[in-house]
Amino acid sequence: MNAAFRFDDWDTPAPTPVAVNAEKQAKIEVDRNRPAMLAPINAADKRIVNGKGDINQLAPFKYPWAWEFFLKANRNHWTPLEIGMAQDVHDYHHKLSPAERHVFENVLAYLTTSDILAMRNIGLAVMEKMSAPELQIYQARQVYEEALHTWTYQHCIESIGLDQQEIYNRYRVVPQIHGKIALANRQLEKVLRSDFDLTDRANLHEFALSYFFFAVIFEGCWFYNGFTPIFALQRRGLMKGTAEQLQYIMRDEVLHCAFGIRVVRELLKEENLELDPQALRTLWDEAEAAERAYAGYILREPILGYNAELHVQQFRFIANRRARQVGVEEPFPGAENVLPWLDEQANLRKEKNFFETRVTEYQTGGALAWE
Amino acid sequence: MNAAFRFDDWDTPAPTPVAVNAEKQAKIEVDRNRPAMLAPINAADKRIVNGKGDINQLAPFKYPWAWEFFLKANRNHWTPLEIGMAQDVHDYHHKLSPAERHVFENVLAYLTTSDILAMRNIGLAVMEKMSAPELQIYQARQVYEEALHTWTYQHCIESIGLDQQEIYNRYRVVPQIHGKIALANRQLEKVLRSDFDLTDRANLHEFALSYFFFAVIFEGCWFYNGFTPIFALQRRGLMKGTAEQLQYIMRDEVLHCAFGIRVVRELLKEENLELDPQALRTLWDEAEAAERAYAGYILREPILGYNAELHVQQFRFIANRRARQVGVEEPFPGAENVLPWLDEQANLRKEKNFFETRVTEYQTGGALAWE
Repeated sequence: MNAAFRFDDWDTPAPTPVAVNAEKQAKIEVDRNRPAMLAPINAADKRIVNGKGDINQLAPFKYPWAWEFFLKANRNHWTPLEIGMAQDVHDYHHKLSPAERHVFENVLAYLTTSDILAMRNIGLAVMEKMSAPELQIYQARQVYEEALHTWTYQHCIESIGLDQQEIYNRYRVVPQIHGKIALANRQLEKVLRSDFDLTDRANLHEFALSYFFFAVIFEGCWFYNGFTPIFALQRRGLMKGTAEQLQYIMRDEVLHCAFGIRVVRELLKEENLELDPQALRTLWDEAEAAERAYAGYILREPILGYNAELHVQQFRFIANRRARQVGVEEPFPGAENVLPWLDEQANLRKEKNFFETRVTEYQTGGALAWE
Repeated sequence: MNAAFRFDDWDTPAPTPVAVNAEKQAKIEVDRNRPAMLAPINAADKRIVNGKGDINQLAPFKYPWAWEFFLKANRNHWTPLEIGMAQDVHDYHHKLSPAERHVFENVLAYLTTSDILAMRNIGLAVMEKMSAPELQIYQARQVYEEALHTWTYQHCIESIGLDQQEIYNRYRVVPQIHGKIALANRQLEKVLRSDFDLTDRANLHEFALSYFFFAVIFEGCWFYNGFTPIFALQRRGLMKGTAEQLQYIMRDEVLHCAFGIRVVRELLKEENLELDPQALRTLWDEAEAAERAYAGYILREPILGYNAELHVQQFRFIANRRARQVGVEEPFPGAENVLPWLDEQANLRKEKNFFETRVTEYQTGGALAWE
């Protein structure tokens, strides 16, 4: 009955079904000897990009770790409505100095634009290129988490009573915020071209570099220590609601980065590809310059316990860590861990005071590794 | 400082930031009179497609209902691990007749392929075309929910101990399942063409029709009563874990369909577009023929309380309801509600027996309208 059938031929009408007759109809029997086109898929046909496996069949997995990421991300579920913001409203209006308000507002302005961009990168540029369903399914969760983060910033901005339109517009009028967004957008738009073909080695390298940028630098460095200025306030008992929101976001971003690093490693191995060291160097240098300009703007006046130089040093330190995880050369040898409290702050499990706030470590199973 | 800046020009390097000097730097002031390109966005510039609003700025909303859909979807959060499957394992192996097992397996085989396709439609074909962030953000949640549903089917298939590869492959070897998937794939591939341009009226109509197909027919009809055969088992006390999983999925799908219908209505209004009645007629007829063939296969032997003819009649009845909601002509005038228990079954709020199972109505606020 399957002779006329190809699973990827959507134009041939399906054969007319036989009239319903239970007596006469044979039970469906899966013939293991039928042509390969109709056999169950072979996990080995799946690839990170340029895959040949059927996109509609989840099992068998080739990348079981991707499925584990999906399950872990689901265990991490949260929403911004669960976290009280009342004290932040008071802190913002009555306790923060003008310099601290400047930091706070511009960090939110940067983050909110960034997370929409992160959502678009995965949703529009990456998912279509990675056809193994277990990869797409984690990315579907990732796209949603970016949207959840956008909601979170919106919730903070609205709760505190900031001028939403003005905050959302800052990335266009502040060159130092624009610089980071522009760098990311260039990486995104390179791979959104309609003539982009991953069977071409040059395009493949371009894509690998763009994906590396978003996973390793954008999510793994910029996001990771993008929250730090707010954590510096949190350590002094200020803006603790917002900071707790950001801790949840950071937990997600660390997972995105870890997934992305795994994908980069598999991609390079499968495609027998090496990232051009000069292109990487340029990427790191551009990212550092943009981060330095940004830090100079948001921290044009230092705040208690935190300043622009610490921010940049921390970027360099985290960048080295990410480079080691991917297996490429450290971009900033010798960079020191100038904010040793950051990793601990990032780890929800260690930070909770049960008398001050609700229990946040409600991950329903498993432990999240923080390296 | 903004003169050289265009928010969509990512190739011009950002101006060199001024050296950090708190004393000398003026505070950022938003000049409401600066050129329009840098002014906060105007909600009126947003459109369902062909929008001109800045894709990176969430507020102000033009479509506040889309944001409400996002919040509502988040309140509906659940995962398949919360629902016990132990009794289903016993039921499947010891209580279901061969005809009932045939129904059960093939419904899962159809649904699991369908939900991956639904995810790809929103993620790859729709999101990029709808640039208002409040629309994209709901779609990000929707993409994730389709992945969550795929996980759910996988969880059911695995819990019960079915041959996963064989189940996932059925849509390729069973013409009557293939027929529905092929119809949907044709609608998807039409709008995934790289030369597709929504400023062209013919392409715009093609897209509207494809979107209508997925929102109204695929999610609103095929999914809506695609679960019914399992609910028929549930009403007899069989496969209740799977059925409860499907009730959660159905709640999501009803929301997807309601959102989609709202989008179709806005799209037609904004673009001053009318769906060609002949094209709609063809779509309904093809959808009905595919559903009839599918019903004939999965219910080649009727099961107690349910048969192929009831299934098709219910499709026709639901199709009329959806058509009224969109504001187009009823495709099957006079179709009757042959399964009056279905809407009630679909509504989690009415179905719960607290002594038999856990409380499922844990939506944290608001009520879901079931029409």
